[in-house]
Order: sequence, then structure tokens, then C-alpha cells
Amino acid sequence: NQTFELDSNPHTRLNVLTGEWVLVSPHRTKRPWQGKVEELTPDNRPEYDAKCYLCPGNGRADGDSNPNYTESFVFNNDFAALLENTPEGEMNEDDLLVANNQRGLCRVISFSPKHNLTLPEMSVEAITAVVEVWQHEFNSLAQNNWIKYIQIFENKGEIMGCSNPHPHGQIWSQSDIPLEIAKETERQKTYYAIHRRSLLGDYLKLEQKKNERIIFENDHFAVLVPFWAVWPYETMIISKRHVNSIKLFTDAEKKSLAEAIKILTTKYDNLFETSFPYSAGMHQAPVNNGYYPEWHWHMHFYPPLLRSASVKKFMVGYEMLANPQRDITPEFAANRLKEMSTLHYKNSKA
Amino acid sequence: NQTFELDSNPHTRLNVLTGEWVLVSPHRTKRPWQGKVEELTPDNRPEYDAKCYLCPGNGRADGDSNPNYTESFVFNNDFAALLENTPEGEMNEDDLLVANNQRGLCRVISFSPKHNLTLPEMSVEAITAVVEVWQHEFNSLAQNNWIKYIQIFENKGEIMGCSNPHPHGQIWSQSDIPLEIAKETERQKTYYAIHRRSLLGDYLKLEQKKNERIIFENDHFAVLVPFWAVWPYETMIISKRHVNSIKLFTDAEKKSLAEAIKILTTKYDNLFETSFPYSAGMHQAPVNNGYYPEWHWHMHFYPPLLRSASVKKFMVGYEMLANPQRDITPEFAANRLKEMSTLHYKNSKA
Ligand SMILES: O=P(O)(O)O[C@H]1O[C@H](CO)[C@@H](O)[C@H](O)[C@H]1O
Ligand SMILES: O=P(O)(O)O[C@H]1O[C@H](CO)[C@@H](O)[C@H](O)[C@H]1O
Repeated sequence: NQTFELDSNPHTRLNVLTGEWVLVSPHRTKRPWQGKVEELTPDNRPEYDAKCYLCPGNGRADGDSNPNYTESFVFNNDFAALLENTPEGEMNEDDLLVANNQRGLCRVISFSPKHNLTLPEMSVEAITAVVEVWQHEFNSLAQNNWIKYIQIFENKGEIMGCSNPHPHGQIWSQSDIPLEIAKETERQKTYYAIHRRSLLGDYLKLEQKKNERIIFENDHFAVLVPFWAVWPYETMIISKRHVNSIKLFTDAEKKSLAEAIKILTTKYDNLFETSFPYSAGMHQAPVNNGYYPEWHWHMHFYPPLLRSASVKKFMVGYEMLANPQRDITPEFAANRLKEMSTLHYKNSKA
Repeated sequence: NQTFELDSNPHTRLNVLTGEWVLVSPHRTKRPWQGKVEELTPDNRPEYDAKCYLCPGNGRADGDSNPNYTESFVFNNDFAALLENTPEGEMNEDDLLVANNQRGLCRVISFSPKHNLTLPEMSVEAITAVVEVWQHEFNSLAQNNWIKYIQIFENKGEIMGCSNPHPHGQIWSQSDIPLEIAKETERQKTYYAIHRRSLLGDYLKLEQKKNERIIFENDHFAVLVPFWAVWPYETMIISKRHVNSIKLFTDAEKKSLAEAIKILTTKYDNLFETSFPYSAGMHQAPVNNGYYPEWHWHMHFYPPLLRSASVKKFMVGYEMLANPQRDITPEFAANRLKEMSTLHYKNSKA
């Protein structure tokens, strides 16, 4: 009679933030891979590219030119998925065909004037300047009282649909609360109503006690692989202080967050000695919609790579139709990331 | 003062099967694409490949050899994500670290002995034989009273994580009810409790009346782009008769389903003149778990291509962190598919 072991038996784990489960198949790592191998994008970009719409001084699709900026630079997305001026309206036929208008504002943030950098290759000071821009944009978008949620994110790498390698992120803000935020709000609200403490605060304390999935901590943030991670090397940055948005971060916290991002993304690059692709973004409380004392700021990193720089995890048939599934365990992933150097492989080879 | 129009204004649409919304940005189709362009897999495979683990007579990873089969062929997945024998067990620390064991059986179905075919290139008779196998496997897996759900699906194309181009599908069956099925059960149950009719039956009638998203119908099935489609050319096959699983399909229905699959996948191939990648699978009632009179059998097709054989839609940053998003409207996609020939482009060129 065997006993049930998380590191060898197939099982499901609960995502306490969404209420959804992930199927974990730890025994399946020996599966040979004969499928798609990603082409690697060569990592030899120039510091300035005359054809890049994000480089200083260059022209953009809307006819404007970028200023000769020296830190970060923000502008409205020239191909925004959401628009400020959309007529009010809705449709409902028999509760079967249901639609609502949606307003929004979309911004693009260039992280650096240098075309050939990425976050891990920037200094903590330069990343701190990006965090400042995120906070400033969050505050200024929230001035529009029709905006209810502000999603700050980055798609990094061609494999993550990023159409320009110049280091940049995006903000999509909108008049309704999107799906993932609605789920996390509900779960955090329920927990807070019972315990009068933040769900993620208590979760972090338990993770600190167990010390099986924490990659590193600094003064203000902890970086870990969540117990319920879906993507092979998925991670989460959690603020140690229970604040519900970036608006409340102090100068010390902004610098700490920049440091945490630099260390995490450096470890990612070192894992397969490649510029590690991911989609990352902050989750925080809705705005202009009452109080959200339960909300606890955090940032998700969803990277697709599984075994090497060119073999990714596919979230396809079973995952799309039935349930998210992963092979390596979150504990295995956390250990691999923990043992990675905080010195970028490009520098340690120079 | 403009009025709100689904074909030009950004809006959200409700998925009545899951209760989730999709963000639609119809104005955004003019966005230029400078990002990742997929490599095309050459379409010149031999009828038999000595290195393929699905071809008749060849050896497999578990040491067995395939028989010299002439129609379809089923075997247990040699690298199954779920296993029959997993010790019972669960874990719960403070409702924050929660896990359960999960048992299951995973099968692989070769659709044809010929390595170089795909479903649209097979005859209706040969596809009917595949539908027979699906029904037979469904019934035989359901004999295990610990199995609660049976997911029948196909990943087609390298871009959908398919590691072998030999035409084949999979079945993953398991001891719990997966996420997507739980969502669709809840919505269908609620609708049925109120109306005493199937949600999808009523939805189909409304779609027939409007005739804006239906691609084609035959005696027993309708094929349409759902009002709430997420993927650019996502479609759904709905059975006209309200049955809750493939178990109840008659011979006439099985042949009709084969015909519907052949026509739909042929139109898909013709759209960009390429072997059209997708993940597809049936949704049906759980088994060995009481009655599900509300459940209405259907099959989803989730194809990733957006503009051409080499440019796909990326479900990344905003989509992963906030909400699914699409650019072209479901009505545009339905029209494109409607006008596609039912004769495969390879044959019309010969
Ligand atoms: O089982 P296969 O074909 O090797 O694997 C494929 O389908 C599975 C089920 O959708 C996924 O979990 C894998 O990521 C994918 O590569
Ligand atoms: O806005 P971009 O960078 O052109 O586009 C990228 O990010 C968007 C937001 O996640 C996605 O909707 C697109 O599919 C992706 O290619």
C-alpha cells in the first residue's frame, strides 16, 4: 500500500485566488519530445533601430514622432483594442445573445531608449524608473471615473506575441472588470470576510514556514512558485505589506520591486541561457468602484518554456477543453530557479 | 450621436455556456503584424513512415507493436498524464495548500493507417469509423464506475502541440469533473431548471432564425461560429437532437457527424490553403454521477490562425491576466467559412 505523494502521483491542486484546479502529472517528465521546436530569435539587436516605432526620435503609426527620451516613454496605443469614445449600448435577445459596449484606454510604455535591452539587463535604477511610470500611469488613468480596472502587463519574446523586441509593456484600462480580476476579487473577499486578514498575506506566511516554493525575498517582496502554478516556471511576486494597488507603494517599495524584478528575470534568463519569454502583469483592486480592503497586490509571471530555450508547454486540447495541466511540479521549478545565479549569464561569460 | 454597432464598436459578449465574457475589438483588424511568423510544416509526408509510432506494424515506447490495422486503432497512451493506479489521498493546510489525488485512463486513437492523411482528406465512411471508435471507447471507459468524465479530443498541427503528424486523437478520462465541464454543467442546469428545455437547443433555434453565424447544417447537426467565440475562426458543432452524450447517437447521426466534420475541416483547410491547425473536442455529460438531463452534446473547434497560414492570434498578456480578446467579429468569420468551397483545395487544383 503506497501513500499519496505530491512529487510522484497525478493530482489536482486548488488555486486559492481563482477557485480553479490544475492537474499535475509529476510522473510524466520522461515523455520524449518529437514535436515543435521553436526557432530562437537571434540576440544581436543594435542599440538603435531606425525602423523601430519605439526608439527615440522615430515616427509612429499615428504620424507622431517619439521625443529623444532618456528613461522610459509612454504614449497611447496606435492600434488600441479599446477606445475612449464608444457609444453606449447593449444587446440582449432571450438571454442567449448578450453583449455590452466597452470603453477603454490603452497605453504603451517603452522601458528604455535602448533597443537592445530587456528588464534583466537594465540597472535597478532604470527599472525603478519604470515602476515610477507604472504608478504614475495607474494614478492618472484612475482619474477617469468611468475606468474600473487598469491592467499593467508585458509580453516578452516573439513566442508571447510580442511584435517588437524593443523593451516595452502595455496598459489596458477599461469600463468593466475583466474575468480574472472578478474571480480573484470573489475569493479574496470571501476569505477576508471570514478571517479579517488578506488571503495572500496568510498564504505567504504559510509558504515562508514551509520554505518549499519560495525563490527569494527582499525587504518588501517575496518571489515564489505558487502551489497551484499552471505554467512550468510560473511565479508570483507578492508584496509583504497588504496594499491593494501600486498607488500605495512607497519609494522604498518601488526600489524593492525593481530589484525583485531584476533578480527574477535574471534567474529566468539563466535557466536556459536565453532571453526568457513570458507574459507578466500586476493584479490589483478595481478603481472607482467602492472599497476593496481584501485585495492584495501581486504580479504574475506566465512563461511558456518547459525543457529548453526551444521546447515550450502547449496549453491545447485537454487544457482548452477540460482543465489546465502541468508536468514538472511547482516544487521542482522553485528549486531550479532558487539555484540559478543572480548574475546574468551574458555578464558571467564576458 | 452614433449608435452602438457590434461590427464596429469594442464590446463584450457573454458566453452562455460558461458565464464568461469575451472582449471584441472589431475596429482593430487594420493592425499591421510585425511579430512572429510561423514556419509552415511541409505537407509531403509518405503514406508509411518507419519511424512513426502510429503507423501499422511499427513498435511503440512501451515495447508493443501496432497490428497491421486497416481502419482506426486504439491503445493506451504510453506517456499518460493520468494513471489508473494512484493511491487515494488528499492534502489541506489551512485551506491554502489544497490537493487531491486524481485517477484516469488516457487513450490514443489513430484515425487511419495512412501517415499522410488528415480528417478532411479521409472519406465520410472512414471518418464514420472514427466516430464509431469514439462511441465505443466512450461506452467502454464509462464501464469503470470511478471514471466521472471522458474528454475526447484532437490536437492537429505542430502549432497545437501535436508531436506526430500521423492523423490521431486522444481520450483523457478521469475521476473528477474538469473545470470547463463544471462551468458548462452549471449554466445548462440553471437554464434547464427554468425553461425545461436545453440551453443549446434554444440557442440553436435563435441562431437559425437570425442566420448570421451558421456555416452549414445537415440532417442531424448544425455548424456555427458561436456568438461568443474567442479564437478567430472558432466553431461549434451542435446536435439537433437534445442528447447528452455520444452514447446515444444513432447510425444516421454518426454518419451525419462524420459528414459535418469532413465539411468543416475542408472549409478550414481551404481558408488559408494550408492544413488548418486546431484543437477540437466533444463536450458531453459526466458519467457515473447521476442524471444530466440538461446536458446537450456539442463539439468545439479552437483554431489559432488569424490572418494567414503563418500568422496566429496570441492569447497572451491581457488575455492571460485579464480577459479573452478577439479582433475580427464572429459574423465576419462565419461569412468567410460559409463562402469556402466544400471541395478540398488539393483536389480542386489537381
Ligand atoms: O499528449 P501529447 O500529444 O504528447 O501532448 C499534447 O497534448 C496534451 C493534451 O492536450 C498537452 O498536455 C501537451 O502539452 C501537448 O503537447
Ligand atoms: O498589442 P500587441 O503587442 O501588438 O499584441 C499582443 O498583445 C495583445 C495583448 O495581450 C494581444 O491581444 C495580441 O494578440 C498580442 O499579439
